[in-house]
Amino acid sequence: MTMTGSENMDNPDPADFGILDGISEVIATTRSDASTPNAAPIGIIRDRDRLCVQLFSGSHTRQNAAGTGKIVANIIRDPVMYVECTFGDPGPEAFEYPDGMDYPVLKRASAWILFECNQSKGNMFELTPVRGMIRDKPMLCINRGANSVIEALVHATRYRLNGDARYLDLIRHYDKIVQRCGGSAEKEAIARLKEIMEIR
Amino acid sequence: MTMTGSENMDNPDPADFGILDGISEVIATTRSDASTPNAAPIGIIRDRDRLCVQLFSGSHTRQNAAGTGKIVANIIRDPVMYVECTFGDPGPEAFEYPDGMDYPVLKRASAWILFECNQSKGNMFELTPVRGMIRDKPMLCINRGANSVIEALVHATRYRLNGDARYLDLIRHYDKIVQRCGGSAEKEAIARLKEIMEIR
Repeated sequence: MTMTGSENMDNPDPADFGILDGISEVIATTRSDASTPNAAPIGIIRDRDRLCVQLFSGSHTRQNAAGTGKIVANIIRDPVMYVECTFGDPGPEAFEYPDGMDYPVLKRASAWILFECNQSKGNMFELTPVRGMIRDKPMLCINRGANSVIEALVHATRYRLNGDARYLDLIRHYDKIVQRCGGSAEKEAIARLKEIMEIR
Repeated sequence: MTMTGSENMDNPDPADFGILDGISEVIATTRSDASTPNAAPIGIIRDRDRLCVQLFSGSHTRQNAAGTGKIVANIIRDPVMYVECTFGDPGPEAFEYPDGMDYPVLKRASAWILFECNQSKGNMFELTPVRGMIRDKPMLCINRGANSVIEALVHATRYRLNGDARYLDLIRHYDKIVQRCGGSAEKEAIARLKEIMEIR
């Protein structure tokens, strides 16, 4: 195996990007008709050769993906970025436009894939890989703190939908794991989440 | 950045192996005085330049690390291996002995570091990196199913210590996430865990 610099690929194999069967959590970047970039976490559902994503009405991601027919999956580990993109949009300085591409990617992504995105039924959109780039392959250990930021974000999103206080208890549970097992990035991410949610 | 084949290093930098501040979950391999290999999950605690691990009395890992003064951290993602090593030992075919090394590593690890291991106080052992190898850097996406196998294992271990049925409910909760978000490896891992724990 030889890997030199970054790899730029047409018709990339999602498996090379870590997108395997099950649901891969990535950050989607899209652009509006007026070319405003947007970023939000999504889950790419893979079942053998079929790739799809659920996009809910009212979300910018859905609006943009429906409008342009394109969505970029950014493979990125930074927990703070997941928090920022769940509750708002990163500033324009977080995005870049790779050579000859009209769609934004996250500057700090380890890899990205541009997908064609076609609505199949209801909220479900089918994804076809068009182009991709692997920039770096960081060696990563399992960190329960990093995992807990993601779980806390899932519960935070649900709390915003239905206001059930049970979700706040779950966020506090994951906060404890982050404090014990996380590094500085995970602690910053959960602090930001708690600040946004006004959890003490 | 150029990476060709596998990299063999003396005095490796743990950060190159993904061992950062906080707790990194890895699989420790050790050998007994009689050279029997052992494998068990451990958490490497890093606080800036200090690396340590808690090893509990009665465990083979502690017995072996105290006897030989060495412990290998295997960086590996395979969820089934975490389950196997939590509840028992993989067979001898799972291990290998790299060139000129007396200590076992897991054949399927993406990377490993050999540490010198010195008891500092009670259950705490200080770790000093001696030698390491990075074999492959898989691109990995965040998968809540993979994360849930680890959480389920933590609760399974606690259940075995105190028999509190609350932990069984938590394992069932994580099982549901694995069924929704995991791939075949995660589903196999949680099935194995439930079989061992006799959870239906």
